[in-house]
Amino acid sequence: MDFKSISSSELFRIKAELESKYREFQSKKLKLNMSRGKPGADQLALSMGMLETLDASSATATRSGDDCRNYGLPFGIDEMRGLMAEIMEVDAENVIVGGNSSLNMMFDTVCCGMTHGFSGCEPWIKQKPVKFLCPSPGYDRHFAVTEYFGIDMITIRMTPSGPDMDAVEELVRDESVKGIWCVPKYQNPTGITFSDETVRRFAALRPAAPDFLIFWDNSYCVHDLTDTPDVLLNLWEACKAEGTLENLIVTTSTSKITFPGAGVAALAAGPGNLAVLKKRCTFSSIGPDKLNQLRHYRFLRNKEGVMEQMKKHREILSPKFGVVMQKLESELDGKGIASWTNPRGGYFFSVDVLPGCAKRVVALCEQAGVVLTGAGATFPYGKDPADSNIRLAPTYPPIHELEQAMDLFCICVQLAAVEKILAQ
Amino acid sequence: MDFKSISSSELFRIKAELESKYREFQSKKLKLNMSRGKPGADQLALSMGMLETLDASSATATRSGDDCRNYGLPFGIDEMRGLMAEIMEVDAENVIVGGNSSLNMMFDTVCCGMTHGFSGCEPWIKQKPVKFLCPSPGYDRHFAVTEYFGIDMITIRMTPSGPDMDAVEELVRDESVKGIWCVPKYQNPTGITFSDETVRRFAALRPAAPDFLIFWDNSYCVHDLTDTPDVLLNLWEACKAEGTLENLIVTTSTSKITFPGAGVAALAAGPGNLAVLKKRCTFSSIGPDKLNQLRHYRFLRNKEGVMEQMKKHREILSPKFGVVMQKLESELDGKGIASWTNPRGGYFFSVDVLPGCAKRVVALCEQAGVVLTGAGATFPYGKDPADSNIRLAPTYPPIHELEQAMDLFCICVQLAAVEKILAQ
Repeated sequence: MDFKSISSSELFRIKAELESKYREFQSKKLKLNMSRGKPGADQLALSMGMLETLDASSATATRSGDDCRNYGLPFGIDEMRGLMAEIMEVDAENVIVGGNSSLNMMFDTVCCGMTHGFSGCEPWIKQKPVKFLCPSPGYDRHFAVTEYFGIDMITIRMTPSGPDMDAVEELVRDESVKGIWCVPKYQNPTGITFSDETVRRFAALRPAAPDFLIFWDNSYCVHDLTDTPDVLLNLWEACKAEGTLENLIVTTSTSKITFPGAGVAALAAGPGNLAVLKKRCTFSSIGPDKLNQLRHYRFLRNKEGVMEQMKKHREILSPKFGVVMQKLESELDGKGIASWTNPRGGYFFSVDVLPGCAKRVVALCEQAGVVLTGAGATFPYGKDPADSNIRLAPTYPPIHELEQAMDLFCICVQLAAVEKILAQ
Repeated sequence: MDFKSISSSELFRIKAELESKYREFQSKKLKLNMSRGKPGADQLALSMGMLETLDASSATATRSGDDCRNYGLPFGIDEMRGLMAEIMEVDAENVIVGGNSSLNMMFDTVCCGMTHGFSGCEPWIKQKPVKFLCPSPGYDRHFAVTEYFGIDMITIRMTPSGPDMDAVEELVRDESVKGIWCVPKYQNPTGITFSDETVRRFAALRPAAPDFLIFWDNSYCVHDLTDTPDVLLNLWEACKAEGTLENLIVTTSTSKITFPGAGVAALAAGPGNLAVLKKRCTFSSIGPDKLNQLRHYRFLRNKEGVMEQMKKHREILSPKFGVVMQKLESELDGKGIASWTNPRGGYFFSVDVLPGCAKRVVALCEQAGVVLTGAGATFPYGKDPADSNIRLAPTYPPIHELEQAMDLFCICVQLAAVEKILAQ
């Protein structure tokens, strides 16, 4: 029954009941964490075999004959450039394979825009103001990068088919808009995949700024959790067809395929931007860790090998996503106090609670020992104008802990809602 | 006998003889490379045991209980912070352990100066002009970093005891001078180690710029090649005593201890600069590859373990350095056409040929199949004003190749000298 149509006296009774349950949770002294999209220990175990691919007697040469132990190959080994191109669905010759962090490659790309510029334009630091479009709710660490460089962030509404493209098309007519952050598949945190039409409209964008960049962070490109995975239209090919490849930076990593802390990241760009970024690479480093690239290549081999590995992740993650869904439906459905997404892949759920209640829910959870992603984190500057969105990251805790955490979460969502309705 | 006191007719005879030997070399179709400070394959083999420290059944937790496979610990694992602090002779709490490239940590530090600034000052990009002091001959990739960022470079003469400190002290009175590049031990390429007095004068520097940084790139801190290793005075402690720790950035890596392409790099800084750089780390990445850090810790353990490993490198490198020294002495000594250093460690020899002859020597060598570091590379903007300095990197080729390369080199040095003297 919808909480908003319940009488005050009945609501007071419900509140007392919820408070009693909440106190019970507090007495359990839980210490659980659902804040980050971190794989659990059982997922990490899936890649331990990778450590066997290089031992004291292993050959360490690439097929080009370069020794992975020594200096050289600043753009990565061809084996991994090929493999990463396959999962990113781009051309291998346009790929740079880097260290262990695709976030780092995005950071360095924005940094390169600031200090050196793209497409022959002035460095962004000399073009004030510089603005980025931030579809929200979105990935907090994207927004943090642009905030670090003092770039103005404009919130774009996320719809069920992707960012509000009417707003995007309107805003890129402003020459000071230099980029947009996107997680196009199983978006962080909504879990939605951009529709074909959205992708086509991205490919067709003609921004006023010649140095505009779509950051297409395809972190969850192979991270399916169902038998009917979402299919993302290939923006790389669409941009080639439209002649807009210089608008596009594609990134991904194996962080959630092998090891989050010791994976391999990659970036693809059109020829112009690629030349600018390759030049930076030759100045900024002696080259990436090629032994770790070789390890990955030997363990994963090709896209087929990656998909095999992802099936094993799915077996571990599906029940966890099931728990979250089941708890949300059984505890919150029909009460008119929350709505949520039903992701078919990725690492997150996005829950919208009553406006003005997100911070309260997160605080209540924390005071009972369950840490959630900070309320507002999914918006630029950490400020959710409606104070409504909460990101749930169910992958790290074991299932029995996740059940407890979700029970508590549902109590807190109801408690905050009742408090709010009673105060009105 | 000094070439300059030989008669023309005799010189013509010598020239013909050298040309004949040179043509003989050309007919051998050599393909040798002495251009970079790259360890040879036998040195790489010394660290293959490190790959055994992590296999499918290994524990992957740090002593703090963090799983190295997962996200977290943006400043590195404590085990490696301790070990790197030991070899850098700094305080572990001031150390960030990063990826595989100390050059990358220096690049990022300069980049941070450009975009965000240090010591509360304006970003360098807003303070024009910005200048760096470049003791020369020096490390070409240092100079390349400052050139990439458009920083003006001022050449400082290298003396047998380090950079010309009179010039350094004079120039830091200019507020636009923001840094100096140093390789204080077994300097690249001269092989000299800065004297105690030089180090003390660095510690006592009071630059006009509050955001001045000494880049103390101690890449060869444990890379001794004799029983009587050079001892570098500890600048970290000297700066602490002088209250000038905020002038100092110390870096090193295991590139030439374990694997050049898959080592571990570290940086140490005073509390103020450290806070600025740590902040950048938390935005720029999900953290370094901690599994590779764990591998290094398990393999090397402590400074003693590092020194054991370095003894094995020395056994391989000493004969190579011996070949270079022996060839230089037997072929060039007493002819008044070249002088050279006698490094007790590190990776390089520095040879000064007659002014105006370095490019010619490098070109002659290349035309006979031996690639040297480009003439001029050891100076800012790749321009040696005297066209005299040549860096020799004898570590990569096997000994029989090195002998051939050095024979050719000595012929080319003489040939270029005779050409020059005859043209005068």
